[in-house]
Amino acid sequence: MNHIVDAQKLKKPVPQALLDELQTLFGSRQSTSMAMREHHGRDESSYDPMLPDAVVFAHTTEEVAAFVKLCSRYETPIIPYGAGTSLEGHILALQGGITIDLSQMNRVLAINPEDLTATVQAGVTRKQLNQEIKDTGLFFPIDPGADASLGGMASTRASGTNAVRYGTMKENTLTLTVVTADGNIIKTGTRAKKSSAGYDLTRVYVGSEGTLGIITEVTVRLYPQPEAISAAICSFPSVADAVNTVIQTIQVGVPLARVELLDENGVKALNAHDKLSLPVNPLLLFEFHGSENGVKEQAEVVQDIANDNNATGFEWATRPEDRTRLWTARHNAYFALLQLRPGARAISTDCCVPISRLAECVLETKADCEAQGLIHAIIGHVGDGNFHVQMMVDPNDPADIARAEGVNERMVARAISMDGTCTGEHGVGLHKMDFLVQEHGDGAIDVMRAIKHALDPKNIMNPGKILRWEH
Amino acid sequence: MNHIVDAQKLKKPVPQALLDELQTLFGSRQSTSMAMREHHGRDESSYDPMLPDAVVFAHTTEEVAAFVKLCSRYETPIIPYGAGTSLEGHILALQGGITIDLSQMNRVLAINPEDLTATVQAGVTRKQLNQEIKDTGLFFPIDPGADASLGGMASTRASGTNAVRYGTMKENTLTLTVVTADGNIIKTGTRAKKSSAGYDLTRVYVGSEGTLGIITEVTVRLYPQPEAISAAICSFPSVADAVNTVIQTIQVGVPLARVELLDENGVKALNAHDKLSLPVNPLLLFEFHGSENGVKEQAEVVQDIANDNNATGFEWATRPEDRTRLWTARHNAYFALLQLRPGARAISTDCCVPISRLAECVLETKADCEAQGLIHAIIGHVGDGNFHVQMMVDPNDPADIARAEGVNERMVARAISMDGTCTGEHGVGLHKMDFLVQEHGDGAIDVMRAIKHALDPKNIMNPGKILRWEH
Repeated sequence: MNHIVDAQKLKKPVPQALLDELQTLFGSRQSTSMAMREHHGRDESSYDPMLPDAVVFAHTTEEVAAFVKLCSRYETPIIPYGAGTSLEGHILALQGGITIDLSQMNRVLAINPEDLTATVQAGVTRKQLNQEIKDTGLFFPIDPGADASLGGMASTRASGTNAVRYGTMKENTLTLTVVTADGNIIKTGTRAKKSSAGYDLTRVYVGSEGTLGIITEVTVRLYPQPEAISAAICSFPSVADAVNTVIQTIQVGVPLARVELLDENGVKALNAHDKLSLPVNPLLLFEFHGSENGVKEQAEVVQDIANDNNATGFEWATRPEDRTRLWTARHNAYFALLQLRPGARAISTDCCVPISRLAECVLETKADCEAQGLIHAIIGHVGDGNFHVQMMVDPNDPADIARAEGVNERMVARAISMDGTCTGEHGVGLHKMDFLVQEHGDGAIDVMRAIKHALDPKNIMNPGKILRWEH
Repeated sequence: MNHIVDAQKLKKPVPQALLDELQTLFGSRQSTSMAMREHHGRDESSYDPMLPDAVVFAHTTEEVAAFVKLCSRYETPIIPYGAGTSLEGHILALQGGITIDLSQMNRVLAINPEDLTATVQAGVTRKQLNQEIKDTGLFFPIDPGADASLGGMASTRASGTNAVRYGTMKENTLTLTVVTADGNIIKTGTRAKKSSAGYDLTRVYVGSEGTLGIITEVTVRLYPQPEAISAAICSFPSVADAVNTVIQTIQVGVPLARVELLDENGVKALNAHDKLSLPVNPLLLFEFHGSENGVKEQAEVVQDIANDNNATGFEWATRPEDRTRLWTARHNAYFALLQLRPGARAISTDCCVPISRLAECVLETKADCEAQGLIHAIIGHVGDGNFHVQMMVDPNDPADIARAEGVNERMVARAISMDGTCTGEHGVGLHKMDFLVQEHGDGAIDVMRAIKHALDPKNIMNPGKILRWEH
C-alpha cells in the first residue's frame, strides 16, 4: 500500500485564511474539534482513522458550490461524507483537508408517482426515502447492508440484495446535481427514462467516489410495490449445488427478486445473532415479487430446480413478519459475523464474476480462508455473481491482518482471471487501487486518469482515492 | 446550423503520404473511388451527402489501432461506420477525412449461454446476432428500426421497442473493446454483471457517437426466450386515452415487454404499406412475455385498464405469424411513412419526456405539425415516454424543410421544458448539437467538452459531432 504512504506525504496544513472564510459562510456548522474530526476520519473499513483538519455541514447545493470554490482557491483537499458507512476507506482524509458532511441535506425534494421517480438531497438515506414514499404504493429497491445516504450510494455505485431484479445505482439513477471541482453547479441529465443526448455524465459521476465532483441531489427510479411477495429458504450439501440452482433458475427466465447465498459460517452467525434456527449448511434465501399466481408459479419452478440440485428443507416464509425477520438478519450480517470472534475487526471484501465461474471462485476462496486458519464467512448476491468475504482479524496482530489481505489479493486475482471484477459493489476507495490497475490494464487506467485530470485539474476532490494522480 | 458551416471550413486535404501508408496496410480494402465515398457519405438523415476522402475496411481491432495511429500522426479526421443507418448525420464527413468501415468485422466471438452474454465484433448486426444464438434459447432484445450494427448501436445508445422491459444499450452493454484516439486498445470492463471498480468507461463510450474512440468489440447481455409471448392491439378515441392506459399499466407493475403508440397517420401508412386493416385511430400495440399464465394475467389487467380508458377493438394476436406481421410492419414504419408522400424525404426526430407529460407533448407536437400543414406521423415507444415524429418534406422546397425544422425545434424545447431530453434514442449527430446545449446548460456542456479534449486532444475522432470543439 505504498500509495497511501506516498499520498500522505502530500499533506499540507489547511490555511487559516480558508478556515476563517469558511467560518463566515458556515458559522457553527464548521468545526475543528477533535471529536468531530475523529468521527469523520473513520468508516467501516479496517483502516486506522485519518482525520480531516475540519468538518463543514452543508444544507444546500449553493453552499456546497461556495465551499468548493473556496477550497479550490486554496487548493485544499475536499472529502464528501454521507452516512460514513463505506467499506474501503473512501472517506479517510488521506492528505488532510476538509470533510463536507451532507447528512443534513436530508430533504426529499420531489416525488413523482406517475413517472416512478423521486428527487432527494444527497443526505437522504435509503430507509428515509422508503418511509417517505410508502403511501404512494412505490418503493426504492436498492439496499446495501447499511442505511447509506443516496449520495453515497450513487458515489460508490452501490447495489444490494435486490439488484438481480432491479439493477444497481447505475441503472436506477436518472439524473444528478453535481458541484464540479471548480464550484459550478450542473445537472447531468433529465427525468426522461432514456436519452441519447451526448456523453452520459450521470454515469461518469455514479461510482466516481467523490473524486470528480460532489453529488448534492439524486433523482432515482421507483418501482410499484409488488402485489405479492414470498420468500423461501433451502439448504444444499455444497456451494456448487446452490450456485447451480441459481444459474438454472435464471436461465429459464424466472425473474428472481432476491437470491442470497450464505455459507455454513454465515448461517451459524445469523443463527446466533438473530436467534434463528437455520440448518447449518450452505443456504439460499429467495424472494419472489409478482402477482399472487406469478409468485406461486416462480416458487414452484425454483423448488423443482433446487430439488434436482440436492436441496433439502425447502421452506416458505409467506407471512410478512417471517420474511422481515429473515431479511433483517441478512442485512445485519456484518455485525452478526463480527460476533464470530468477539473483539475482532472485520476485513470485508467483495468481488463479482460471470455466474458460470461463481461456484469455483467461492470454493477456492473459501479453501484459501481455511488454509490460512481465518475465521470467516461468505455471503453472496449470487444471482449477480457477486459475493462478500468477511474475515475477522485481531487488529493488534499484523500477521493475522496480512493473512486476510493475502486471501483478498488472491480472491481478486482469481476473479479477474475469470473475466470478473475486483469489486461488485463496495468500490475502490484506498483498498483496491492496485487491483484496479490489475483489472483494467494501463491503457484503460490512463483513460480514467485523463478524465480525472480534466475534471479535477488541481486534484482536490477526494485525492488519493481510486487512482494515483501520476502515471 | 452555423456549426456545420464553421466545421466545414476546417476541412483540409488528406495527405497523400497517409493514403500511401494506408494502402500498404489495407491494400484493396482501401478505396478512394467516388462510388465508395458517396456510399459512405450519407445516412438516413435528411442531410445532403458529405463525402470522406477515402474509405478503409477493417477486419481486426489491431488494424483499427494501426489505422488510428496513422491518422493521429497526420491529424486526419476519422469517421467510424457500421451499417450506415444513423438518422442525425452521425457518419457524414463534415471535415472530410477517412471513413473506417467496420461492417466486415462481423464475427460473433463468444457466446456464453450460462452467463447470458455474447461478445461480437462491432460490425455484427442485431439480426445476425439473434440468428447465431437462436439455438441457445436466448435472445438479444434491442431493436432499433434498422438492422443496425452492434457497434453503431452502442455508439448511439440505441434502444427500440423492447426497451421498456429490457433496457437500452446503456443497460445491456457489459464491456467494450475500444481503440482510443491515440491508437491504444483498451477494454472498458469485464463480463461480471455489476462492478464498482472505478470510472464507468463503458458508459463513457456508449453514446459517444465515435467522438472519443472507436468501438471494435461489444459484449452484450442476452435474455432467455420467454416461455410464452402474446400480443394485443386496441384503439382509442384520443392519444391521451392511450397514454393514460400505459401510465396506469406501468403503475400497477405489469411488466410490459413492448408497448407502441401509433397515431392515425401511422396506422394509415402501415395499413397501406403492409396490407393491414387496422382501425384508423390512435392505436396501442402491446407485447407480453412470461409464463403461459403470466402472459394471460398481464393481458387481462391491461384489457381492463384499456377499457376504463375508452379503448375499442381489443384484439389478440397469439399466433406467431400474426405477431410477426404486426411487428414487421412496425419495424418498417420508416419506409411505410415515406409512402404517405411519394418522392418526399423524411425528417425524422425523436424526444423523450417523463411519462406523465407524454400525452401533452405528443398532442402539442401533433397540433404543430397540422398547423404547419405537414404530412407527418407520430409513433412512440410510449412505455418509456419516447416518441418519434416523421415529417415527409419536398427535398427541393426550402420552405417545407424550414417548416419541419421549426416543428422539431419547438418539440425539443417542449420536451426540455417538461424535464425531458432532445433525443431518446437517435442521438445528437449534427442535427441536435444546438439542442444539446439547451438541454444540459453551459456548465454540463463544459464538462463534456473537457472529456472530449482529454480523450481526443487532436480532435480527430468524428470531429464536429455532438459538441463544438471550442466553447
